[in-house]
Amino acid sequence: MIGPVFDRIAIIGAGLIGSSIALAARENGAAGKIAIYDADEEVRRRARQLGLGEVCETAANACADADCVILCVPVGAIEAACEALAPSMKPGAILSDVGSVKEKALAAMQTHCSEGVHLIPGHPIAGTEKSGPEAGFSTLFRDAWYILTPLPQQEEAYNSALDRLAAFWEMLGSKVEIMEAGRHDRVLAITSHLPHLIAYNIVSTAYDMESVGEGEVVKYSAGGFRDFTRIAASDPTMWRDVFLNNREAVLETLGRFSEDLAALQRAIRWGDGDTLMKEFERARGIRKAIIDAGQDTSDVNFGRNMSDKPKH
Amino acid sequence: MIGPVFDRIAIIGAGLIGSSIALAARENGAAGKIAIYDADEEVRRRARQLGLGEVCETAANACADADCVILCVPVGAIEAACEALAPSMKPGAILSDVGSVKEKALAAMQTHCSEGVHLIPGHPIAGTEKSGPEAGFSTLFRDAWYILTPLPQQEEAYNSALDRLAAFWEMLGSKVEIMEAGRHDRVLAITSHLPHLIAYNIVSTAYDMESVGEGEVVKYSAGGFRDFTRIAASDPTMWRDVFLNNREAVLETLGRFSEDLAALQRAIRWGDGDTLMKEFERARGIRKAIIDAGQDTSDVNFGRNMSDKPKH
Repeated sequence: MIGPVFDRIAIIGAGLIGSSIALAARENGAAGKIAIYDADEEVRRRARQLGLGEVCETAANACADADCVILCVPVGAIEAACEALAPSMKPGAILSDVGSVKEKALAAMQTHCSEGVHLIPGHPIAGTEKSGPEAGFSTLFRDAWYILTPLPQQEEAYNSALDRLAAFWEMLGSKVEIMEAGRHDRVLAITSHLPHLIAYNIVSTAYDMESVGEGEVVKYSAGGFRDFTRIAASDPTMWRDVFLNNREAVLETLGRFSEDLAALQRAIRWGDGDTLMKEFERARGIRKAIIDAGQDTSDVNFGRNMSDKPKH
Repeated sequence: MIGPVFDRIAIIGAGLIGSSIALAARENGAAGKIAIYDADEEVRRRARQLGLGEVCETAANACADADCVILCVPVGAIEAACEALAPSMKPGAILSDVGSVKEKALAAMQTHCSEGVHLIPGHPIAGTEKSGPEAGFSTLFRDAWYILTPLPQQEEAYNSALDRLAAFWEMLGSKVEIMEAGRHDRVLAITSHLPHLIAYNIVSTAYDMESVGEGEVVKYSAGGFRDFTRIAASDPTMWRDVFLNNREAVLETLGRFSEDLAALQRAIRWGDGDTLMKEFERARGIRKAIIDAGQDTSDVNFGRNMSDKPKH
């Protein structure tokens, strides 16, 4: 039996990710004590009801004596959270986060991080379209990648802290990868940020199609549209902050997307079926690679089970 | 016990839709005899092995004596199929199709349709990302919409044929809607055609991101990208034909999408978080409406079950 990696962790922010960390850490015995804080009093009340851990009334209280503090707030809220809690962190503790953008998250944490605290940004490639403390579940991180973007060339104490944080995430079921922060932001721009932006955008376009009317968009959404609405239902604040804080990589990736789309548009206008075929055929290869890599189910329609759903 | 709607049906094209119709018609007793034909000899061989029905060596043979002929071929192949089989259809029989574009499908069928044959185009709002005769299953159409786009102002014999075709699809489990062909094409442009085009396009963009490399796109696809790869794995020929044959509606819808995307791009560039929040917040409403209408599962992540999948 392996003991807990940390005697005490503090989770700041009790949304989907924060509450899932609390549940997973307890279930897997990865932390002795779990302190949790949320800036929203109502969320703290619900976190207490859900039994997510020792719910504290201030971030400073949660972080005092913590061996590891994990910020689970939108990227835009990281700096203010750090300012409030950094003075109460003990020397040798780890300060980490779960933000979807790593360069800006790192910069925000560095502003207020005390000497002697080990700053190790992180990001789970896991989530759902639901938000809030009730959305959390203990297996969210199981078999999912967890990316750590540590500072370069550090001393032995830092590297030892990095090993502990990696061990913590492995106990929660994750597969840990080390990556440079800027590279993380460019990779996630295409694998996560652009897909969310596109999904939000097509939902907006559909919403506004007055020639169709919302009723028909919903009614015939099984034609493909419904697939996009899932990730477009994700937390608006979190995603606003992602786009504002990974601007350069998102705009670069979006530029490529728009160029490619213009080429498809031109092929449609001029009846160039060969160009369309060429693009469409290679898409199957990526789908197969994703399934082969264990990153999606091979069940048709994602294995959706509609049989227990209301019929209209 | 209700008897079969048709004594004999002919299915032309043994792909996902054609094979599913064959299996569903038999399981639900909607047709006495099921004749099936595919232009590809190898597909005919597999259809025979799968026991999809009486597999014929020519379309004319399949259609002789059929009370209802359903073309299950890509939209671009409808006219040639009609030319081959129209002369052998018996008077009073129904000629229908399952194409995703209805104005052009209607025009293609009208070119060769004999006097006395009732031409009633149709389109199931059902499908999966898989193709070929092995992809079919008998419950594909259950609780799904089936849109019929009949000719306007017809005689009693035509209206009676329309009632029979609707009854056939209802026996297969579908909910039948009547719609004007042009309206169908505009509605499906936003609910199905644009989503597929966008999905194909983002997969292409990801494929070409040399700064990232395909390995990382696949590895971290759970961040959102994988959702798009499902519909982008759909049959390339079918989708090429959809875009070439619903050009005006797709270009119009795509124009709106691009305008909206440019507005989001501008908001990101100028740090306009309010605009992003406003767009992102209303997306949740459409997701909820789709779930309330029974058009998608409320399970998180589409209820994906990854536990039996390979781990890397």
